[in-house]
Amino acid sequence: MHKKVVAFGEVMMRLQVPNYKKLEQSRTLEYLFSGTGVNILSALSKYGHTTELMSKLPHTNLGDAAMSYIRSLGISTSYVLRGGEYMGIYFLENGFGVRGTHVTYTNRKESSFCQARKEEYEYDKLLEDVEAIHFCGISLAVTLNVRETVVTLAREAKKRNITVCFDCNYRPKLWDSYEQAKTLYEEMLALSDICLMTEKDAMHILGMKTKETERTKQLEELLPKVAEKYNIHTIAGTMRETISTNTQQLTGFIIRNGEVAYSRSHTFDVFDRIGGGDGYTSGIIHGHIMQWPQEKIVEFSIASAVLAHTTYGDSPVASLREVEALMNDAFQELER
Amino acid sequence: MHKKVVAFGEVMMRLQVPNYKKLEQSRTLEYLFSGTGVNILSALSKYGHTTELMSKLPHTNLGDAAMSYIRSLGISTSYVLRGGEYMGIYFLENGFGVRGTHVTYTNRKESSFCQARKEEYEYDKLLEDVEAIHFCGISLAVTLNVRETVVTLAREAKKRNITVCFDCNYRPKLWDSYEQAKTLYEEMLALSDICLMTEKDAMHILGMKTKETERTKQLEELLPKVAEKYNIHTIAGTMRETISTNTQQLTGFIIRNGEVAYSRSHTFDVFDRIGGGDGYTSGIIHGHIMQWPQEKIVEFSIASAVLAHTTYGDSPVASLREVEALMNDAFQELER
Amino acid sequence: MHKKVVAFGEVMMRLQVPNYKKLEQSRTLEYLFSGTGVNILSALSKYGHTTELMSKLPHTNLGDAAMSYIRSLGISTSYVLRGGEYMGIYFLENGFGVRGTHVTYTNRKESSFCQARKEEYEYDKLLEDVEAIHFCGISLAVTLNVRETVVTLAREAKKRNITVCFDCNYRPKLWDSYEQAKTLYEEMLALSDICLMTEKDAMHILGMKTKETERTKQLEELLPKVAEKYNIHTIAGTMRETISTNTQQLTGFIIRNGEVAYSRSHTFDVFDRIGGGDGYTSGIIHGHIMQWPQEKIVEFSIASAVLAHTTYGDSPVASLREVEALMNDAFQELER
Amino acid sequence: MHKKVVAFGEVMMRLQVPNYKKLEQSRTLEYLFSGTGVNILSALSKYGHTTELMSKLPHTNLGDAAMSYIRSLGISTSYVLRGGEYMGIYFLENGFGVRGTHVTYTNRKESSFCQARKEEYEYDKLLEDVEAIHFCGISLAVTLNVRETVVTLAREAKKRNITVCFDCNYRPKLWDSYEQAKTLYEEMLALSDICLMTEKDAMHILGMKTKETERTKQLEELLPKVAEKYNIHTIAGTMRETISTNTQQLTGFIIRNGEVAYSRSHTFDVFDRIGGGDGYTSGIIHGHIMQWPQEKIVEFSIASAVLAHTTYGDSPVASLREVEALMNDAFQELER
Amino acid sequence: MHKKVVAFGEVMMRLQVPNYKKLEQSRTLEYLFSGTGVNILSALSKYGHTTELMSKLPHTNLGDAAMSYIRSLGISTSYVLRGGEYMGIYFLENGFGVRGTHVTYTNRKESSFCQARKEEYEYDKLLEDVEAIHFCGISLAVTLNVRETVVTLAREAKKRNITVCFDCNYRPKLWDSYEQAKTLYEEMLALSDICLMTEKDAMHILGMKTKETERTKQLEELLPKVAEKYNIHTIAGTMRETISTNTQQLTGFIIRNGEVAYSRSHTFDVFDRIGGGDGYTSGIIHGHIMQWPQEKIVEFSIASAVLAHTTYGDSPVASLREVEALMNDAFQELER
Amino acid sequence: MHKKVVAFGEVMMRLQVPNYKKLEQSRTLEYLFSGTGVNILSALSKYGHTTELMSKLPHTNLGDAAMSYIRSLGISTSYVLRGGEYMGIYFLENGFGVRGTHVTYTNRKESSFCQARKEEYEYDKLLEDVEAIHFCGISLAVTLNVRETVVTLAREAKKRNITVCFDCNYRPKLWDSYEQAKTLYEEMLALSDICLMTEKDAMHILGMKTKETERTKQLEELLPKVAEKYNIHTIAGTMRETISTNTQQLTGFIIRNGEVAYSRSHTFDVFDRIGGGDGYTSGIIHGHIMQWPQEKIVEFSIASAVLAHTTYGDSPVASLREVEALMNDAFQELER
Repeated sequence: MHKKVVAFGEVMMRLQVPNYKKLEQSRTLEYLFSGTGVNILSALSKYGHTTELMSKLPHTNLGDAAMSYIRSLGISTSYVLRGGEYMGIYFLENGFGVRGTHVTYTNRKESSFCQARKEEYEYDKLLEDVEAIHFCGISLAVTLNVRETVVTLAREAKKRNITVCFDCNYRPKLWDSYEQAKTLYEEMLALSDICLMTEKDAMHILGMKTKETERTKQLEELLPKVAEKYNIHTIAGTMRETISTNTQQLTGFIIRNGEVAYSRSHTFDVFDRIGGGDGYTSGIIHGHIMQWPQEKIVEFSIASAVLAHTTYGDSPVASLREVEALMNDAFQELER
Repeated sequence: MHKKVVAFGEVMMRLQVPNYKKLEQSRTLEYLFSGTGVNILSALSKYGHTTELMSKLPHTNLGDAAMSYIRSLGISTSYVLRGGEYMGIYFLENGFGVRGTHVTYTNRKESSFCQARKEEYEYDKLLEDVEAIHFCGISLAVTLNVRETVVTLAREAKKRNITVCFDCNYRPKLWDSYEQAKTLYEEMLALSDICLMTEKDAMHILGMKTKETERTKQLEELLPKVAEKYNIHTIAGTMRETISTNTQQLTGFIIRNGEVAYSRSHTFDVFDRIGGGDGYTSGIIHGHIMQWPQEKIVEFSIASAVLAHTTYGDSPVASLREVEALMNDAFQELER
Repeated sequence: MHKKVVAFGEVMMRLQVPNYKKLEQSRTLEYLFSGTGVNILSALSKYGHTTELMSKLPHTNLGDAAMSYIRSLGISTSYVLRGGEYMGIYFLENGFGVRGTHVTYTNRKESSFCQARKEEYEYDKLLEDVEAIHFCGISLAVTLNVRETVVTLAREAKKRNITVCFDCNYRPKLWDSYEQAKTLYEEMLALSDICLMTEKDAMHILGMKTKETERTKQLEELLPKVAEKYNIHTIAGTMRETISTNTQQLTGFIIRNGEVAYSRSHTFDVFDRIGGGDGYTSGIIHGHIMQWPQEKIVEFSIASAVLAHTTYGDSPVASLREVEALMNDAFQELER
Repeated sequence: MHKKVVAFGEVMMRLQVPNYKKLEQSRTLEYLFSGTGVNILSALSKYGHTTELMSKLPHTNLGDAAMSYIRSLGISTSYVLRGGEYMGIYFLENGFGVRGTHVTYTNRKESSFCQARKEEYEYDKLLEDVEAIHFCGISLAVTLNVRETVVTLAREAKKRNITVCFDCNYRPKLWDSYEQAKTLYEEMLALSDICLMTEKDAMHILGMKTKETERTKQLEELLPKVAEKYNIHTIAGTMRETISTNTQQLTGFIIRNGEVAYSRSHTFDVFDRIGGGDGYTSGIIHGHIMQWPQEKIVEFSIASAVLAHTTYGDSPVASLREVEALMNDAFQELER
Repeated sequence: MHKKVVAFGEVMMRLQVPNYKKLEQSRTLEYLFSGTGVNILSALSKYGHTTELMSKLPHTNLGDAAMSYIRSLGISTSYVLRGGEYMGIYFLENGFGVRGTHVTYTNRKESSFCQARKEEYEYDKLLEDVEAIHFCGISLAVTLNVRETVVTLAREAKKRNITVCFDCNYRPKLWDSYEQAKTLYEEMLALSDICLMTEKDAMHILGMKTKETERTKQLEELLPKVAEKYNIHTIAGTMRETISTNTQQLTGFIIRNGEVAYSRSHTFDVFDRIGGGDGYTSGIIHGHIMQWPQEKIVEFSIASAVLAHTTYGDSPVASLREVEALMNDAFQELER
Repeated sequence: MHKKVVAFGEVMMRLQVPNYKKLEQSRTLEYLFSGTGVNILSALSKYGHTTELMSKLPHTNLGDAAMSYIRSLGISTSYVLRGGEYMGIYFLENGFGVRGTHVTYTNRKESSFCQARKEEYEYDKLLEDVEAIHFCGISLAVTLNVRETVVTLAREAKKRNITVCFDCNYRPKLWDSYEQAKTLYEEMLALSDICLMTEKDAMHILGMKTKETERTKQLEELLPKVAEKYNIHTIAGTMRETISTNTQQLTGFIIRNGEVAYSRSHTFDVFDRIGGGDGYTSGIIHGHIMQWPQEKIVEFSIASAVLAHTTYGDSPVASLREVEALMNDAFQELER
């Protein structure tokens, strides 16, 4: 039997103002349901994996709609708890050219997910037949309940030799200070096999220092040290150059055994910015499971990330065939 | 100078699933901003009054969009405070025929409005040149902050001989028990000149008893007693018969000096159910200011209520001319 | 070769507020192009006739869009002149239930059509192979240019033994007084073979008097006199009962050789009110060309009118098969 | 472990012209994926059952979209085969009032489903842990491949004591003659535990005769005989009165052990006509599994059918709570 | 008390074909209400100013919708006269890449605004507590009534030491010849403190000559002379390079005391071209009121202009914070 | 009398997923009707020609909608046969940036067009007053019926000295092998006066060989030989460079009497890729009829092709004025 990839994370409702309008200019919104976990699993489903979300949603029509949407992405919801009262919601105003994209959150602390206690989840059942599990740093930031569940779950996974993937995803607005985050992040790093992070995380969260000023130099110095210190098999991340809201450049890197490999740089038109990074992470997990060499993993992952910017929604939906074509420079502008 | 009508109340965002779909079936929502206070003032603006909302909205793009929308209804927002973090949101799934309409609220307790302390409002400035002020029972239910502001404001208004209009609007889900509500409601009734309520409010909230079993008998017995006890100039309300979600019947009543007057009954097609009752209240306030006899007030108010069911949105937008035409049976199916 | 049916009339742009909103509530409009002539020909195309519009449209993208739309209805535009500057536009706010439908016109006097001089049209070419021609009373109201063209064209048609059909369609807002209209209408009546009118037109425009108070009595007394006086082969019209904006009742009548025949009464749900009457007229013309007995003509015409209320747009698009099914009580709620 | 309900049937794409327009009037379509099997399972998922579809879909983006949609309804697609080339498509023009609804099919004979040979399905795996299986008469009509699969599968189910539910669903356009259908239908009836049919099926397909002229008399005479002859535990069906496309009346009946029970009659506003009958069937299956008395089954089923007419789409999505409320006359026009 | 900025100008309805279609290809339009005055005030409201429009609108639902829209932009409508019959309308077909954008006007000469006589406005009341007033050259072109009002109002403003801002905005199609315009423009220049114009206006309207062939040389020679001759405190304008309909380049200049300052050049993606210039003007007025040095004014103004090309609608809605970020190169592609 | 341009070809329904979504992400589609023949004639109508389509469409609402749409493009449908059962349909998922565009076809072999026998068309009537006729290589691929009709019709046209234009349009998926195509293509080449093809067609379909490796060298060597061998007056085609799905480069060539002329290269933003090539072909036909020199023809044609990429839909709708402006570098980004 095929093993599953699991992600633990919050599901939020995204309310997007259509047609590049500001919220005050529109009368309609488009909506969908997403979250780092949902996004990772969406891509991995497209790449052929069996996927399962661990989360909690309320017994309201919002919860029902979220369940329906997640299943439509090919993700199993058998282990999504139902109960509590609310769901997190965010509003998205897409930028254009020199105008940036704005995200506005509603209060998520009282969501079903953020209020769920760690005792509510059944770890034994959840972790049966699981190959890899994904966590996101945002989960560490929201409530004590969620933090405890994350750490408990990561430990349980580690015990069962399940690959633990941790995406640092540090969002300054969610934390009082880097100090507050440091201990929690260190605990997770020590449990991780794969870690998504950049040299900035090393410097700011972990407080590491370097005399280098160039980004690549910094990451080449710091991240192998991180890998060694916390015994992390794979560290990976991206470097983004913003030309405008509509045009960006992305380069991926991956570090294993102290070796740093870079992908080629893609400059590309952006259709939907949100979830682009999750396209990268899902490539890393896919490549890891496929046991590819790191050069292939990083090229696949960056192609996955780039295509995630060209499809609608937070959750990547490009097909395996499309990612491979971009990776192999076999792009076809019109197929019929 | 023309005196103003003021309303104090929360502004919420309404997110409506279009085309009678369930939330799980759609990908788009229509939105607007409303609230009992906004709805009353929207109608009164159409009837020719200068109107002013007292509320608080966050300094986010949601708050900006709400401000813009409220102004578009012809309501002044000069005294809307800005600050705090969130806004209340509700989702609307319209029913059809034998399928009912569903409203789902998000957590509103942490909204800017619900968190605003009574000291934040400048009562002297707010109540200058004001003819009438409107409060809604929902405000009593939400947070201590709001309760205190409501009572303070009602007292300040009373002191200045401003007509105080109070709509009981008891929502069971917002209260632990009728007992919890009773004291607060009694305090407001004692400050009110106009009160929107029915015999059910008298029985349940005030704990009054009657041996009558028919609605009209009950209200004719109980409500004049309420008026006398709390010294309320005008008590008014509606009786609704539901034929289906699409077809309903409405009859209005008004009580002054112990005299009960009924409007004729309207049976009508319903387009947008929410805010129908606010159409009635605004008719009562308009008629009161116009110093009409109670028979005319109740006929105007019921026509205002019925038309509010035929226009899009919570906030009534029928014109004075349309309300008068319906009141006078001068309805024209096609005007060109 | 099949002879054509021709109509002379203005083409207007209809801008409809969607979803029963008021103009101040929407941000989008639906549009189409119509006019009494266009509507008549649209139905007649569906009934199998070759149709041709005589009109004038500007050389702008509005004119191009109108040409395109009219052709899409199956109407030939070979004789539509191009030139001038503007097109008439009207805004449609659909009513709902007890709320009526509102039509707001822009200034049409300076439209290409209203400014076109009678010398611009080539009558000989236009009237070749024509079986019937339709005129609308609105054309008499707008400008002197149009009036002159109408009368000239009707005379030229009469000369060539083409059936002249005239729809009185008196719109009070377009005239200063009935007196102003009388002479012009009388001139057209004298040229008409088929005339769409009611007893009200006889009384108001022609100034005829009757002691009867009931509608059917009035029309039975007055309209045969009109037919005789102006030598009109067929007079026809409808009687409308409005239950609400959404539900109406319609009965047709037809008068030939002094004999009045009535259709059965249809009570029906209304989807799009505008152009309903034109559905009736086109039935009368179709029945006339088919040389049906008047009982069949009036039943077909009323079915045509009723179905025109159930389809989107001013221009009737029900198929011949659908009209016949309704006429024969062979309505099928679901066909698959 | 909870047993599953399974349905075998084709998945089609529905392309609906929005806003009651004809196809020639619109520029946009709404789409979804449905089929009798999908519809039954959609309702049963809402009623709390684990559901599984057996079908075949092509490896194209249409197939992917269908898979995604079916999963969003809460139906498992683990046993949906992928392969072949095409999918059936149908166009839906909604009628209004006296205008009927039209369905136009594209060629479905070459769809993946219709071309799938019976050897492609793995019966043992499919029928594990299954409580009931549903077949639709349309499957008998399409291709020899599908017919063979239906009969094979029904036999395999019967062997395993799985409840076989067969909906006659005779569509004249799909058959050359009733004679052609008779043998196939008789074979399925003999394998069925539950059968959806009416007296018309008994008379036309089975060739049974009666002297009764009234519907209820006919069904009371014929259907118990059918049940006895083919050893069918439950026969059920509905009687529909069409008031207009928008308003209809429905009464259910159920026959067990020769006893006929009727539901009360519902007259109701129709929002989406397609799939209404499948709402009834799913009620029958639900009641059967719940082992309810037939009076409760028929009332639940008719409420399920009626609500299926009030929700968007072919596939019923009313909640269990809504169906129970309607069954118990506890309808609430507005819930908040 | 805060002083107001006032603009005098026509309000037009903009009807935009969505999704880059031609009018003949669509069935829907998006609409809003705008005008140079509305646009200027929209931006100034965002920059924190109290704003007031002086105009006239008809007492129709179009007029109501325009009022509602203008208020939604944060502009007071207390001094907008109501009456007359029509509103100007324009149709917008957005270009794409090498295909240009087309604007088609309807007849505006008979609009309420163009027909309003100068006696209708109450100048004393209008000009109370006003800091600056804005006029647009288009107003000079339309009707005699408007011309007279413009000049009268400018004189009255000048008398009261209100800053007069005049945007030349010469539209060739609205004038018979430059000669016709010259006298009127000269009169306005003599009354202006701030003037938006380019070297082309100086050469064509004012008939000035230069031997220079380069744009910057021409403006550096001519515009200081204009400023001196008509005693204009500030002259400002932009230079536009069109790369395609979707990509353009803009550079601003400002002239005070004979000193010319240029902004840096922005190359940017264009979302909505209309009203871009008004974004510049509003920056100039804002900087003038803020008493900034001209270098800062021109940088702010060009950022304001560029952002106005990236937001939906004619009326600029970028926030002060966004303009400052662009001015300071602190652009953030994603803010959350 | 003006002579007509005729095209023979299939009409297909295009179902486009809006807003760059994948089919699994949307709930709505936009549709239109197109085909190589329709596209060519759409452009030629804009360039002032009388146009006529030869095809066959079913007597369903799809057929009616197609007829309506084609007429709306200005194309006469008098010779479109009606009958048969189905229409071809294709689904369009627009790509974005590095994500390609996908077209998915339904089964078209059983369409009315593909099933129509060559005897059904009335050649004498069809070819009266015809100047040029257009065929597309796709027609050769679909069914034997269509192949026979194409060849018969081309021969009949040739007999009458009508210019025969043949677009090779080789689609690999529609053929088993190049060999299968060769004979049929050679037959059509021998009948053609104008042929749209590239060096690839010469090498692959005709099996010609060259030692050149550069595209221009290959076409300069091979295509003049083709022209000579099959006696083709004009051979023309384009060379496309894909920068991304959104940005492409196009250069045209034309060959007459052994002389090769190239257009300048256009790099441009792409809005709607489908039908771009047909914009080129229609330019070639227009230039041929206008008897322009080949340099002008190729510049006009490439401008026509480029603009066809900037307008919505398969069928080019740019105006003659717009094509000429682009050809003459007189592009105006905003015209008002």
